Amino acid sequence: MNIAKALEALVDRCVDVIARDELATRLAEGRPLRVKLGIDPSGPLLHLGHAVVLRKLRQFQDLGHQAILIVGDFTARIGDPTGLSTSRKPRTQAEISADMQTYAAQAALILDVEKAVVRYNSEWLAPISFADVIRLSARVTVARMLERDDFSKRFKSGVPIGLHEFLYPLSQAYDSVATQADVELGGTEQLFNLLMGRRLQEEEGQRPQICMTLPILEGTDGVQRMGKSLDNYIALQDEPSVMFGKVMSIPDQLIARYWQLATTRPKPEYEAIERDMQANELSARDSKVQLAAEIVRLYHGPALARSAHDHFEKTVVRKELPDDMPCLPLPPDEASLMLGPLLVKLGWAASNREAARLVRQGAIKVDGKRIDDEKHRESSWRDKVLQKGNHQFARLGAEQKR
Amino acid sequence: MNIAKALEALVDRCVDVIARDELATRLAEGRPLRVKLGIDPSGPLLHLGHAVVLRKLRQFQDLGHQAILIVGDFTARIGDPTGLSTSRKPRTQAEISADMQTYAAQAALILDVEKAVVRYNSEWLAPISFADVIRLSARVTVARMLERDDFSKRFKSGVPIGLHEFLYPLSQAYDSVATQADVELGGTEQLFNLLMGRRLQEEEGQRPQICMTLPILEGTDGVQRMGKSLDNYIALQDEPSVMFGKVMSIPDQLIARYWQLATTRPKPEYEAIERDMQANELSARDSKVQLAAEIVRLYHGPALARSAHDHFEKTVVRKELPDDMPCLPLPPDEASLMLGPLLVKLGWAASNREAARLVRQGAIKVDGKRIDDEKHRESSWRDKVLQKGNHQFARLGAEQKR
Repeated sequence: MNIAKALEALVDRCVDVIARDELATRLAEGRPLRVKLGIDPSGPLLHLGHAVVLRKLRQFQDLGHQAILIVGDFTARIGDPTGLSTSRKPRTQAEISADMQTYAAQAALILDVEKAVVRYNSEWLAPISFADVIRLSARVTVARMLERDDFSKRFKSGVPIGLHEFLYPLSQAYDSVATQADVELGGTEQLFNLLMGRRLQEEEGQRPQICMTLPILEGTDGVQRMGKSLDNYIALQDEPSVMFGKVMSIPDQLIARYWQLATTRPKPEYEAIERDMQANELSARDSKVQLAAEIVRLYHGPALARSAHDHFEKTVVRKELPDDMPCLPLPPDEASLMLGPLLVKLGWAASNREAARLVRQGAIKVDGKRIDDEKHRESSWRDKVLQKGNHQFARLGAEQKR
Repeated sequence: MNIAKALEALVDRCVDVIARDELATRLAEGRPLRVKLGIDPSGPLLHLGHAVVLRKLRQFQDLGHQAILIVGDFTARIGDPTGLSTSRKPRTQAEISADMQTYAAQAALILDVEKAVVRYNSEWLAPISFADVIRLSARVTVARMLERDDFSKRFKSGVPIGLHEFLYPLSQAYDSVATQADVELGGTEQLFNLLMGRRLQEEEGQRPQICMTLPILEGTDGVQRMGKSLDNYIALQDEPSVMFGKVMSIPDQLIARYWQLATTRPKPEYEAIERDMQANELSARDSKVQLAAEIVRLYHGPALARSAHDHFEKTVVRKELPDDMPCLPLPPDEASLMLGPLLVKLGWAASNREAARLVRQGAIKVDGKRIDDEKHRESSWRDKVLQKGNHQFARLGAEQKR
């Protein structure tokens, strides 16, 4: 691939590229560029939101460049120094390594993890002295820090910002110095931190890294950014039929964006799809089915993508039962159980309260019939087919039929 | 001295005492309290402005408490990390030690320096790691830092604040933790830093130090704070007659304040003097002469104070020549010299420009006659008496007469 073409492909999908001409210059040097991505292995579920940046990194890999994954273990080991958050306890080296294995297993669905370099930033941050911290801090002003979007909002609304929080972007910036990054990738919300790395490298006499940011992908709700806590995510490791169904559940106005950010299609192709949809030459429904099939193919291959598609057509479109259904064991007292507590016993709901909510929302069917009373009983649940939403089926207390 | 009386004496002259009841409690413990004062030995000229706080420290010493002088060598060794200031170059250990000797020689005029402990804060700050800095920084918020008067003003007016500047109050606060200070003294502008030390000690599980601030003394101009750069200072090591003359030059409205802050008079006495002056039972003129004599006595003893007083009466009040006058050697070409260049040769002016200014201001007399032309010549300068202002006399090119 010639440089102009490589450049075109690399800047595609990016929101910021600072600066494009510098990237062109470095590509022209003909050496493997050091492409840095800071990762957080502590939330070990990777989803299509993470994939946007990871796929950009993979693109660099495919062009012969060096992917460098930076694990922020230095701050992870400190935990929350204010002691206010119980969720940010200090993590041990063993925990961090375990996290990293889970992370790598998922990232391998996108990256060539064998060729990626993994660096733990405690390697260079732990030995830094107070005097070094003062010298580093002198490179940046308080006003500049307060320009960062989240800091600015909190400062204006009087939400306390711990002084240590100002040191974190600085550490991340120093990671770029320590690894002599040529390029750093991140989501758009990372632009400030990326630019700080660029600036610090320059102050330390290095060539400033090129900062490339990628869009934040909306979740299946079509409103908020995809995230684990919002339950609007499509995990890279979701089962094919679940993944297919989740893509089918996104609102139509998100289809073009998913074509752009959740597939590997080059720009002319995803733009053509969008044009066709706008011109009504491609229906939203058809486009979405193709999109779902394409995304499942990326993570599970063509065969499983096809069967996920079939499964969807059969169970959702034609409302038939799927061929393969797990069998859930029933408790001995099953006959006395009401639907709500049964869902909890089976692990389909976390609490009676959630079970009741699911039932009342009409999400639960028994033998294909919607049940809207969580106190519903059957003389026996054995052999009944339980269904939650469009995608989750199970046969109760029977041998699995296949 | 009983505790109530000691407390009364110690809080006298203070602006803030946080908190007075805690000070009472600690005095009642009957042990020597650790009284911390941060000093900057790099500006080695001590004046009456410094004396305000030093005398408070001496008061603690006289009551059997432990004075701890903290030298901020840690930041001095770093210098100005922005590299913007040439005046704040990193200082070597040798330079800092030399500074400290100069400092101690002057401080000895007030403190019992033999009994004071001198600690260099690099002892505990140099070994601090980045992780420690993060933990310390988490104790304070950005908003709290920006409340400090100078930071607040600079932030509002857009004058850059380097992030490292936020780390300095934190280091000073940590000095209190490291030395387990019971009390910290400072000028009123130090209140923020002192309180931060108090807070940090508490967070680190120590008893919080008592913070005591003292007023900032105005210089002889009566307007700005006394400072070396403003040439409005009275140095602790000023010659008796110079010191006497400088005190006599302060504006009348400052007399009461100097009685309070520049002498060791207890409160009832300096208040009585102020009342007498307000009631016109003591003239400003008489009060000022007594004040000058008292201040000179504090630094030079009663004998030299008396002769300084006599000198002042003779040369300024009665315009006579002083008994003791230095003799300045004349250059061989003295007859050809104009007054301006002569002043430069004699070291009374730094440049021809300054000499011309002095002459035109009417500050220079030759044989008691004011000369206002810097080009003035004499057929010979030998044996002439040269006078600068009210206090500086010299006989030219003759043996010293005594």
